[in-house]
Amino acid sequence: MTGLLTDLYQLTMAAGYFEAGKADELASFELFFRHLPRYRNYVLSAGLEQVVEYLANLRFTADEIRYLRSLPQFQRVSPGFFEALAKLRFTGDLFAIKEGTPIFAGEPFLTVRAPLMEAQIVETYLLATIGFQSLIATKAARMVEVAGGRAVVDFGTRRAHSPEAGVLAGRASYIGGCAGTSNTETGFRYGIPVFGTAAHSWIQAFATEREASQRLQDLLGEATVYLIDTYDTIEGARLAASLGRPMWGVRLDSGNLVELSRAVRKILDEAGLQDAKIMATSDLNEYKILEFAAAGAPIDAFGVGTDLATSTDSPNLGVVYKLVELDGRVTAKFSEDKHTLPGAKQVFRLAGHDVIACSWECIGCSPGEPEARALLRPVLLGGKLVEPLPGVTATRQYAAESIKRLPTAIRSLFDTDQQYHVEHSQALMALYEKVQNENGLLRHRHAD
Amino acid sequence: MTGLLTDLYQLTMAAGYFEAGKADELASFELFFRHLPRYRNYVLSAGLEQVVEYLANLRFTADEIRYLRSLPQFQRVSPGFFEALAKLRFTGDLFAIKEGTPIFAGEPFLTVRAPLMEAQIVETYLLATIGFQSLIATKAARMVEVAGGRAVVDFGTRRAHSPEAGVLAGRASYIGGCAGTSNTETGFRYGIPVFGTAAHSWIQAFATEREASQRLQDLLGEATVYLIDTYDTIEGARLAASLGRPMWGVRLDSGNLVELSRAVRKILDEAGLQDAKIMATSDLNEYKILEFAAAGAPIDAFGVGTDLATSTDSPNLGVVYKLVELDGRVTAKFSEDKHTLPGAKQVFRLAGHDVIACSWECIGCSPGEPEARALLRPVLLGGKLVEPLPGVTATRQYAAESIKRLPTAIRSLFDTDQQYHVEHSQALMALYEKVQNENGLLRHRHAD
Repeated sequence: MTGLLTDLYQLTMAAGYFEAGKADELASFELFFRHLPRYRNYVLSAGLEQVVEYLANLRFTADEIRYLRSLPQFQRVSPGFFEALAKLRFTGDLFAIKEGTPIFAGEPFLTVRAPLMEAQIVETYLLATIGFQSLIATKAARMVEVAGGRAVVDFGTRRAHSPEAGVLAGRASYIGGCAGTSNTETGFRYGIPVFGTAAHSWIQAFATEREASQRLQDLLGEATVYLIDTYDTIEGARLAASLGRPMWGVRLDSGNLVELSRAVRKILDEAGLQDAKIMATSDLNEYKILEFAAAGAPIDAFGVGTDLATSTDSPNLGVVYKLVELDGRVTAKFSEDKHTLPGAKQVFRLAGHDVIACSWECIGCSPGEPEARALLRPVLLGGKLVEPLPGVTATRQYAAESIKRLPTAIRSLFDTDQQYHVEHSQALMALYEKVQNENGLLRHRHAD
Repeated sequence: MTGLLTDLYQLTMAAGYFEAGKADELASFELFFRHLPRYRNYVLSAGLEQVVEYLANLRFTADEIRYLRSLPQFQRVSPGFFEALAKLRFTGDLFAIKEGTPIFAGEPFLTVRAPLMEAQIVETYLLATIGFQSLIATKAARMVEVAGGRAVVDFGTRRAHSPEAGVLAGRASYIGGCAGTSNTETGFRYGIPVFGTAAHSWIQAFATEREASQRLQDLLGEATVYLIDTYDTIEGARLAASLGRPMWGVRLDSGNLVELSRAVRKILDEAGLQDAKIMATSDLNEYKILEFAAAGAPIDAFGVGTDLATSTDSPNLGVVYKLVELDGRVTAKFSEDKHTLPGAKQVFRLAGHDVIACSWECIGCSPGEPEARALLRPVLLGGKLVEPLPGVTATRQYAAESIKRLPTAIRSLFDTDQQYHVEHSQALMALYEKVQNENGLLRHRHAD
């Protein structure tokens, strides 16, 4: 099952909490990033559905527990811990920001409030799930931003970091605004539109390019996309024009796409195929799409692979998961360069800026205050789903609307001096100072 | 099952081959990369075991087939195709270069020789599996290269591109020379050593740092790694020194690691704990490890996360999968900037250079010729495993020995002018010219 899909230290700590009688203490952990990734002015939240699925299915099998018992780190652990692992289910609460919400540094994507042992074990899976999908949804949104209404399709599975990453990249890309994906499993699992017709091997597999293209048209009818660059793009375009309808259009996968798209458009138009579309592929990304758009290249759709599925220019999102409350006590970390703010929080979105506050605050609740929306909402309570999650199509729509409301500078492809304005509430800053002072006193006592 | 874990166009092509009566034509596809990734002078091959597993388990369930039939792309396809999918198993041959072999641009990692329909469908999964694991094994090898015998451990799952990518990154890192991984599932599945003790949340979970550290020692004994930077590293080191043995050592996770490691070493030594080790973590990579080694920092082990699990400085390997033979006919692609060499190949490794040759050639077989090793070996014949694959420990050992034999310049972290010397055999180049000429004639005929 899913129990061992975590870092070993989560399990040694779980054992230690069990031995110390702390396994059931109520803990709150928050998942956030300290800094925006390189070249990003916002991050589009994604991956919550897979978090919920994981928490609902969290189990340790007998074989997995036997494996743990064999490790040197578990030789001093009492049998009761392994019995507890065998019975472990996620029984806690999950609060989360909706998938498809643009968020910023320091804002929690989600808060886990659960018995300490459960909350600790799930850390690794949650980070890898939310971090990756948010990274890809963000990358997709950048491409859609500059594509000017033309379709962007995810073709990246083959370069994704494992086949499963490809499936999830397809999902995240769709949330980020892509029209669909080439990944068939993504379509099957999540009901996302799937695209794809033929590769160069198809053209090579027949005696002539004409036969290959004719067969493709017979097979696909109006969905036909002639792949025209296997031998020579211009001749390929002439061939496609001579075969004509039914067709969706043609695909270019090499060469100078601005010049070729113009030449191909001319050939299609001269054959009376004004409705035939041109799709471009071949190592695309948002920067190239921006150039094609600026050049007015007659490209109707972009198929994007590697750069989308791995977020090549910024392949990491530094998500962390930090303990902020335990057994009624607020807590924080004060390492030299890695402070965290104590206590469970809420993120309020106002017109043009956000406020990070203590979880018990209600900004926008008093008469006369500007309107504010609390972004962290209950998703699981006592391990049970509060209400069904929205489907990917609704989430994609919500993402598009949310991005549209961001300031223009934040939506730029390029680093901006104008950061999105995120404040901390006075109550949160007062709590931070209080905990820091107490901690100073505590350290002082230790040092005696 | 695994059937839909592929790009849709593999399945539309499979349907087209079926309709054209070509599904059973014998095809050879080769998997390779055209160019080395940025900042890499070689790539360490990895992922073959997962390829073999996938091919052995390739299946389409009734639900998956029902889904395909619902798609617009399959409305013209005859029922026989879906019956063929339901029965589909991988029945072909697989030739591959051993995991842990350093390879270069243009050299096939593997060759699939199978009925066209089977060989086409598996493309996407094979690319994502081999590409990703090779990328990570290579990254790991770079860190191990400069760590000068000190242990490098994979701690990257939380930043991997999905939880499953984390599991496979742990495996690939081990092949690349890491001592082990924090990923418990990786340890369970592949028998790879697992490491990990406690996070900052452990320290925060107890009333004092002293209590947390004492509890850790009680739990782990000689495996204890005190995490000493939660509040103040120097005071943390003094606390660890006062608790003393049993312990493995301490972990630093923030601040200036060169200065702190020296100060901490002094504290441990003065307490008579010369055998206590220092582990460093905190956004490490091969460049920082090189600096620590050059500075003579007293660090005994490195835990590496994000940069290892995502190969941050070079997060893609541009693997492709190209049709080179079909039904006894050699074939190639001549797109403007993406030529491929025709016909199934063999890679021969000689002292100091490689030769890519036609599959039927035998270099080093004639008396007087220098010794040469054929790298592509049969792995599956008729869908059956020829012999058990080596375990990860043997593969890791083989990788270390293979890397040691590379020229020093190729093992440098930095780009080198001295590329590894890869030749093409005369027979292969003659075949290339022949196919190119025939193709030119063919195109000419088309254009008439």
